[in-house]
Amino acid sequence: MAKEKLRIGMVGYGFMGRTHSNAFSQAPKFFDLDREPVLTAIAARNTERAEEFASNWGYGSVESDWRALIDRDDIDLIDIAAPNNVHHEIAIAAAEAGKMVMCEKPLGRTAAESSEMVAAVEKAGVSNMVWYNYRRIPAVTHAKHLIDAGKLGRIFHYRAQFLQDWTIAEDLPQGGEALWRLDVDVAGSGVTGDLLAHCIDTAMWLNGGIDTVTAMTETFVKERPHNITGKVEPVGIDDASAFMARFGNGSLGLFEATRYARGHKALYTFEINGENASLAWDLHDLTRLSMFDHSDEGTERGWRSIHVTDGEHPYMGNWWVPGLHIGYAESFVHQAADFINGLDGTAAAPTFADAHQTDLVTDAVLKSGKTGQWENAS
Amino acid sequence: MAKEKLRIGMVGYGFMGRTHSNAFSQAPKFFDLDREPVLTAIAARNTERAEEFASNWGYGSVESDWRALIDRDDIDLIDIAAPNNVHHEIAIAAAEAGKMVMCEKPLGRTAAESSEMVAAVEKAGVSNMVWYNYRRIPAVTHAKHLIDAGKLGRIFHYRAQFLQDWTIAEDLPQGGEALWRLDVDVAGSGVTGDLLAHCIDTAMWLNGGIDTVTAMTETFVKERPHNITGKVEPVGIDDASAFMARFGNGSLGLFEATRYARGHKALYTFEINGENASLAWDLHDLTRLSMFDHSDEGTERGWRSIHVTDGEHPYMGNWWVPGLHIGYAESFVHQAADFINGLDGTAAAPTFADAHQTDLVTDAVLKSGKTGQWENAS
Amino acid sequence: MAKEKLRIGMVGYGFMGRTHSNAFSQAPKFFDLDREPVLTAIAARNTERAEEFASNWGYGSVESDWRALIDRDDIDLIDIAAPNNVHHEIAIAAAEAGKMVMCEKPLGRTAAESSEMVAAVEKAGVSNMVWYNYRRIPAVTHAKHLIDAGKLGRIFHYRAQFLQDWTIAEDLPQGGEALWRLDVDVAGSGVTGDLLAHCIDTAMWLNGGIDTVTAMTETFVKERPHNITGKVEPVGIDDASAFMARFGNGSLGLFEATRYARGHKALYTFEINGENASLAWDLHDLTRLSMFDHSDEGTERGWRSIHVTDGEHPYMGNWWVPGLHIGYAESFVHQAADFINGLDGTAAAPTFADAHQTDLVTDAVLKSGKTGQWENAS
Amino acid sequence: MAKEKLRIGMVGYGFMGRTHSNAFSQAPKFFDLDREPVLTAIAARNTERAEEFASNWGYGSVESDWRALIDRDDIDLIDIAAPNNVHHEIAIAAAEAGKMVMCEKPLGRTAAESSEMVAAVEKAGVSNMVWYNYRRIPAVTHAKHLIDAGKLGRIFHYRAQFLQDWTIAEDLPQGGEALWRLDVDVAGSGVTGDLLAHCIDTAMWLNGGIDTVTAMTETFVKERPHNITGKVEPVGIDDASAFMARFGNGSLGLFEATRYARGHKALYTFEINGENASLAWDLHDLTRLSMFDHSDEGTERGWRSIHVTDGEHPYMGNWWVPGLHIGYAESFVHQAADFINGLDGTAAAPTFADAHQTDLVTDAVLKSGKTGQWENAS
Repeated sequence: MAKEKLRIGMVGYGFMGRTHSNAFSQAPKFFDLDREPVLTAIAARNTERAEEFASNWGYGSVESDWRALIDRDDIDLIDIAAPNNVHHEIAIAAAEAGKMVMCEKPLGRTAAESSEMVAAVEKAGVSNMVWYNYRRIPAVTHAKHLIDAGKLGRIFHYRAQFLQDWTIAEDLPQGGEALWRLDVDVAGSGVTGDLLAHCIDTAMWLNGGIDTVTAMTETFVKERPHNITGKVEPVGIDDASAFMARFGNGSLGLFEATRYARGHKALYTFEINGENASLAWDLHDLTRLSMFDHSDEGTERGWRSIHVTDGEHPYMGNWWVPGLHIGYAESFVHQAADFINGLDGTAAAPTFADAHQTDLVTDAVLKSGKTGQWENAS
Repeated sequence: MAKEKLRIGMVGYGFMGRTHSNAFSQAPKFFDLDREPVLTAIAARNTERAEEFASNWGYGSVESDWRALIDRDDIDLIDIAAPNNVHHEIAIAAAEAGKMVMCEKPLGRTAAESSEMVAAVEKAGVSNMVWYNYRRIPAVTHAKHLIDAGKLGRIFHYRAQFLQDWTIAEDLPQGGEALWRLDVDVAGSGVTGDLLAHCIDTAMWLNGGIDTVTAMTETFVKERPHNITGKVEPVGIDDASAFMARFGNGSLGLFEATRYARGHKALYTFEINGENASLAWDLHDLTRLSMFDHSDEGTERGWRSIHVTDGEHPYMGNWWVPGLHIGYAESFVHQAADFINGLDGTAAAPTFADAHQTDLVTDAVLKSGKTGQWENAS
Repeated sequence: MAKEKLRIGMVGYGFMGRTHSNAFSQAPKFFDLDREPVLTAIAARNTERAEEFASNWGYGSVESDWRALIDRDDIDLIDIAAPNNVHHEIAIAAAEAGKMVMCEKPLGRTAAESSEMVAAVEKAGVSNMVWYNYRRIPAVTHAKHLIDAGKLGRIFHYRAQFLQDWTIAEDLPQGGEALWRLDVDVAGSGVTGDLLAHCIDTAMWLNGGIDTVTAMTETFVKERPHNITGKVEPVGIDDASAFMARFGNGSLGLFEATRYARGHKALYTFEINGENASLAWDLHDLTRLSMFDHSDEGTERGWRSIHVTDGEHPYMGNWWVPGLHIGYAESFVHQAADFINGLDGTAAAPTFADAHQTDLVTDAVLKSGKTGQWENAS
Repeated sequence: MAKEKLRIGMVGYGFMGRTHSNAFSQAPKFFDLDREPVLTAIAARNTERAEEFASNWGYGSVESDWRALIDRDDIDLIDIAAPNNVHHEIAIAAAEAGKMVMCEKPLGRTAAESSEMVAAVEKAGVSNMVWYNYRRIPAVTHAKHLIDAGKLGRIFHYRAQFLQDWTIAEDLPQGGEALWRLDVDVAGSGVTGDLLAHCIDTAMWLNGGIDTVTAMTETFVKERPHNITGKVEPVGIDDASAFMARFGNGSLGLFEATRYARGHKALYTFEINGENASLAWDLHDLTRLSMFDHSDEGTERGWRSIHVTDGEHPYMGNWWVPGLHIGYAESFVHQAADFINGLDGTAAAPTFADAHQTDLVTDAVLKSGKTGQWENAS
């Protein structure tokens, strides 16, 4: 018997448009899904490139305006893979049209934006999710299982960092298609919304809510040529952002993100220290979960490098055989699969409401970066 | 303008059937191909499972006999993803029918088998390739480029190992669908053909031909229940195999493979030591290439961990952004792409003729394991 | 010709008394010294244990009161290896008596204390030094050389942590001989003075002065039995302390220390990110310095693991042969050697004045931990 | 009450003379010894340098001939730290004079030599030991304890390597004081006796006797200037040596040593794979023991990095505090302590008889390197 279809309308064809399209393309080949995803249409202003993208990924048609996508009856889900500044408008319109909505992170440029987006999907009662993909790297999911099983005991510390080095060159322009992440009007913020948002999403998933934060933000390169205006203009984003946090469970948090850490490309790491055990993970060695278990025999204790590639590990039974790696893109495949299989039961997280909590923290970080005070984050 | 199609007939739907199907499915989405691969048909005796497989991967039809596949006019390429004992017959029949042939490794169970397969494809003049996929892990390909550029100077040492631990349990049966690798009649040999063949293929690609070898082979578990006969029967494969080698360039080789190295899943490693530089790689950390460059300033020398994820690194410009990993499966995607783009120009390696050289070495290893003598390997 | 002697009077026989005694014992065997250190006398209240210690290390005599040591004419140098609460009084008395003074870190329990200590040694014009030993781990010294040579360019980030896990058990007592580090009256503070002080000393040596800080401190276990009073008493020290900093050179700092990071024994790490290169080091792998050099050929860039064991590396020509490790204790040997060889020329650092700067930072950290504000640190 | 003295006569003042002298100097400061070692005298032909050495380490007197040392009544122990070619004569003379004998490894240049040395000490009934120091790196000793406790079960594999790169330069001379290891007359062999001997000693200690071997040896640089003759002469040593082995317990061994592995200084590694657990160690990270324990919960299994620095770990309770490293030299300190504390009870190993077994293996390796056959090794 044929499965019910999930007809997808994609907005955007950039880096994230590719990861999402690949996710929906691969998911049914490796996972048993409740519905069959169909890449129905894509919307983008540059229709020439959109046509090429559609042809590559098998989208049935192309729209030059996302509003046309929302108007179509043959679309069930709007997936927003466009820059941050259009998330708000598109998501609300889609929800109001009764479409399910998936949105690339961060949900809003501000918590005010995402608050309205949450209200819209909840009012419409439509399924919704935000692409915080790192939850579904199998080693990260495994960490969640171990924590939920009570392996760690009382938590003392959580620390995370996301280090990159791609904007050190002073002549790198801001704005334009490839570099909109440097344009504060489009991106909303710099590394706080782009990188720390990932760290915060994972942190609150693993360790619960964050109460208060104090932050330090910096823009190392104060002016850059703007691709659109053609002029050298002040840089509005934060190049680096660090904050200290107090979690609701009494543990302490330390977070840092930067695009000025020479030698690191996408070094997202976290570590959580509990009374009985600690866990650590690193995106540059993504198949490994490090665990120190204090309940091991005294002289035999040590950090274990758990190679999360066995059939019993999260998601891995659906891929190859033990020892063989999957990569970054598969985390999106897992998310697509979980979203689809949560449609008729327990909704997969993070929902818009979950992601709004992250925006509350990033807002507090940006505010504290200016006030120098501890700020409420929830 | 529509591209010429490359219509594929797949034989087998097991682990390798999946990796090959995924390769042809993903290749056109990430690489600019000269022809468009089409998953036309699959042949397998178990048609129920074959139907399921065909549906999952989009094959247009199913045949219960690979001969029917070869007879079809709408098939350009026969891809053999079936167990080793049928490689010989299928490949020769396919070549004689004028089909291109791709074959999972090892090419033959013996060099005698592969010798006839080489003769068949060469007589027919059909394109051919063997799926030694590890050449196309980007870090391995990068190693090849550095060696070819003369970075290492005179070579002194090459060492490789492929360590697994999945057959330690004595009650694991031999034979049958999942475990044919333990049945010597089907597999031809144990770890020598399954694992060392990979090490040898890479070694000869990077460091040239092997002249002589002396080997040590062992079967730790002497009897196992047989899935097909239902009886406990002697185990005919080698559980472990190690050999020392002399390469044509005067360097020394040391190779080892086993399925009894507790703690290792698929630890394929190699290291090559040259006068001026050394390189090392490890499948469990596949995105990294380690390099020691003696020409670095004396007090600043050290093994570099090259994170092979930049756009300038082999194949990586077609995937995501720097720092984000691809996995095992992508090596097959690269091979599919290279095969297709080599059809109208320089044929991509390893061809059947190349893979036959590997079979000559594995034959010599197995022979030496019995004679205790140094044996010629070419 | 016999060398001039440097007659040492040691105060304390604990962990630090051993490292200092070993340093003066080993230094002349491995380094060419301007003067010959002589372990002349040791002072401690527990004379029985002091006698045993003196016998073990070859001290000529024992005093029950450090004042007696200072009164002796046959002592040139007072080395303070006693708990923090007596540093101030002993150092000032020693200086006033015209003795050279070496003092275990931190110099004072507060910057107010150390300010007076600096004044005393400067007024007396006596040689002085504080045992921030980690500067003289060869890999750390090598980092200093590379930074001073301009290898890194403009600095963006400095981060350091010192993670331990030895006080997690709630029944661990505070105070008494072995555990005075948990008694705030004796120690002055918890991890801030004990661990962060090391991180700060290295940081300012490598990256210059710190202008301002904002901190988060926590005492996880609020009450502990007191070894001296025999009662359960409030814990006055900080169990964990983290702070963000702005350096004078415009770079950002992130520092953390704790004794509640399960799985880490003495994980002191630092990393510094510059425009052209980055460096990282780790006490648990102390012979290695990691360096990323952006000036390396693009596709060959990677973090280098410099094995700091060659004869050309700092201090290493005096030990064994390349590849063979020294350990923690040798950093004290180097410091003893440098102190002695700086007596007649350029004084070796860190002097009391240098260490006072560290106390200013730790004071600011502790203050900010209470106020929640950014505080001046110099 | 004063302890009985152990009066030491040292032969040689080179690299090993330093490590042995340091061992006897440090041992009583860190270990509770049954006797008090006294550095009584040193013998060496170059008396000027010997005087300097004696002064540095506190030897009471100097002899220009080792025979004079043996003749002295105030010497209890002759410690041979001289080149390999004099081990045989000195050891036998010392034993015949009733002296205890310690000897740097390898015991003889050949098993024939060491056989006579064993006979001499056994006939004389004198305590004896060979300085295979790596047994007493705490992580290695810990491995021995875990194996003896039955942690690993049936053993399948043992592999070891000792990789260096210091003789790659073709203009490096052979012979003379610093480079006698390249002179076959003095050294007996190249890397087989110098490096593989270490690997073999540890291997047989951990995994029992070796029955048979087949080897491959090579001299990459065939001629070198000779420091003594002043002429370019053929090189008689093996630059590289690898062998495969069958242990008495049925496990397979793989060994390799070379001085032509660019990038490695003293990379001695071993790994042992058992049915239930595996262990691995590496001299370049000497404080760690890696263990994979298959009895761990399935999804939580992983290689543990045991940081062998706790008070409960072998020898470590006598040094500093958890997390702080000792180095290479301390392994000699441990051996000196164990030798002394075994004098009146169970003799510490390896004795001359134990070390002779290693010489039997190295002889078989060198022989097989020529014959190309499997050779008996015991």
